[in-house]
Amino acid sequence: MRPNNKLSIISFVVLAFALTAAVAGAQDPLPSWNDTASKKAIITFVGDVSREGSPNYVTPAERIATFDNDGTLWAEQPMYFQLIFALDRVKALAPKHPEWKEKEPFASLLKGDMKGVLAGGEKSIAEIMMVTHAGMTTAEFEKIVQDWIATAKHPKTGRLYTEMVYRPMLELLAYLRANGFKTYIVSGGGVEFMRPWAEKVYGIPPEQVIGSSIKTKFDLRDDKPVLVRLPEINFVDDGPGKPVGIQMQIGRRPVAAFGNSDGDLQMLQWTTAGSGPRFGLLVHHTDAEREWAYDRRSPIGKLDKALNEAQVRGWTVVDVKKDWKTIFAFQK
Amino acid sequence: MRPNNKLSIISFVVLAFALTAAVAGAQDPLPSWNDTASKKAIITFVGDVSREGSPNYVTPAERIATFDNDGTLWAEQPMYFQLIFALDRVKALAPKHPEWKEKEPFASLLKGDMKGVLAGGEKSIAEIMMVTHAGMTTAEFEKIVQDWIATAKHPKTGRLYTEMVYRPMLELLAYLRANGFKTYIVSGGGVEFMRPWAEKVYGIPPEQVIGSSIKTKFDLRDDKPVLVRLPEINFVDDGPGKPVGIQMQIGRRPVAAFGNSDGDLQMLQWTTAGSGPRFGLLVHHTDAEREWAYDRRSPIGKLDKALNEAQVRGWTVVDVKKDWKTIFAFQK
Repeated sequence: MRPNNKLSIISFVVLAFALTAAVAGAQDPLPSWNDTASKKAIITFVGDVSREGSPNYVTPAERIATFDNDGTLWAEQPMYFQLIFALDRVKALAPKHPEWKEKEPFASLLKGDMKGVLAGGEKSIAEIMMVTHAGMTTAEFEKIVQDWIATAKHPKTGRLYTEMVYRPMLELLAYLRANGFKTYIVSGGGVEFMRPWAEKVYGIPPEQVIGSSIKTKFDLRDDKPVLVRLPEINFVDDGPGKPVGIQMQIGRRPVAAFGNSDGDLQMLQWTTAGSGPRFGLLVHHTDAEREWAYDRRSPIGKLDKALNEAQVRGWTVVDVKKDWKTIFAFQK
Repeated sequence: MRPNNKLSIISFVVLAFALTAAVAGAQDPLPSWNDTASKKAIITFVGDVSREGSPNYVTPAERIATFDNDGTLWAEQPMYFQLIFALDRVKALAPKHPEWKEKEPFASLLKGDMKGVLAGGEKSIAEIMMVTHAGMTTAEFEKIVQDWIATAKHPKTGRLYTEMVYRPMLELLAYLRANGFKTYIVSGGGVEFMRPWAEKVYGIPPEQVIGSSIKTKFDLRDDKPVLVRLPEINFVDDGPGKPVGIQMQIGRRPVAAFGNSDGDLQMLQWTTAGSGPRFGLLVHHTDAEREWAYDRRSPIGKLDKALNEAQVRGWTVVDVKKDWKTIFAFQK
């Protein structure tokens, strides 16, 4: 009988361990979040829609959660990381463009004069974006992004940009997926700028990334098909564009949406206006010590109208200073 | 010992049954296909990429298969079903538009004079599409499509349009999914015309439907967010547009693509030019008895250039007459 007894003991230990782990997991699926109202609201909602038999049960196919990227999943200060990428690309491409030394906004940029660049307004930024994002194939652009994201460092922290992701949000993504949610990025950033690293960093595959885009054109080069990126806006996935992008690519209304700025207002309106249980959340950056504090008057990630609407529509507002125990993994 | 013996016998019977079913399944995953070269090519490819340890093994995440809809998954004769939908809608809307009695192409259409309608060329068709597809919210349009698809009958067979689907292709979709493939529709048809019924009929959820689209606009009506369909082309998912649509919505290159016309040429080029094992298939409609026979000179579903390229690039060409045992389920 000893082998059976031994087996029983092992089974018991394994079972006990599994139960302990499950209970521990249930107690703290979000260890980087303090035990405040925001965390409780998330856990209550997720349990409510994913527990079979719950009156608010939502089928797994409908458990769509959409996340803004800049300022929600990763930082966006001192400026959008994709803009820093574009500035870096101008510098890298400058030797091939001697004419840029005399031509704005490139001349200012190459002298390190960001004020001069920004003096040209949106037109200058658009010009910088186009020369750095168009003119190559999709495969070539993917390689350029991969090389940059693997090496470029954040100007303030000296960390890789993929380290500038919010640890509480990574836990939230994993927690939602563990409860049957499909997680999407819905960002004003370029879709092909995010796809090369989003799966590794966020666990979000290319087909679940929605973003802004330029037009592309199919072509045969030496009988080999390519997609060429053209210097022409295709879609702006920001503000009122976000519900449009969601409908275009998903074709279902999300049940939960997460953002941090007025650019996410319409996504949260669209998401939370659906029937049945809905969840809207805004990350309010309030911690100047551990990262950045900004809201109503910030030129980047302005949070003003959406903050007012959060009160009216019952959205959860994360107070980073109070609600997040850890912000970036490297600070732990 | 009897309970244990009984249990063993039951276990054995269950196991034997499961094995038999598995072997039977392995013997004929595509019962509506005759045992010709096309079927063998499909089964060889699927086994080759999905069997662990195979030198051509493809991870499940990369097992993307894209399907044209009109003429590939369902019939497209005597004209695209979405065009029939549009014509039906003009008739339904006519009482609210007395001016149409005097205005082409509506006047001809309402008199049942299709030649008069087509005399106006693409401009007339575009006008009919816009008045029937734009001007309402996405939710309203979904309801209109659902009502039509549930009741409208095919002019030749008298069957619901959802019965005009090719049974061998339904089996192929299921077979691919059973082997870890993610199946997508990539159609020149309207994405919001297909989504309301594609999941029920094909098992393809809304987020895996790619198609042509008109622009939509986010709006608040009585504080309720809506997406309004505008009479303006957003994207034409046909011909060279198909690889563009695939990259936009999936962000990965498929490993297998299925079509039936020159509108699928670039999708098959793009798919089969990728590295590693690839599969391209064209359905050649050769059976005038059981459905329709058409190819190089057909105004709808023209198959000419792609048929030539199939030889050069090694794509499988299905000869409907010889390769398909059953075409529509209702013919069985």
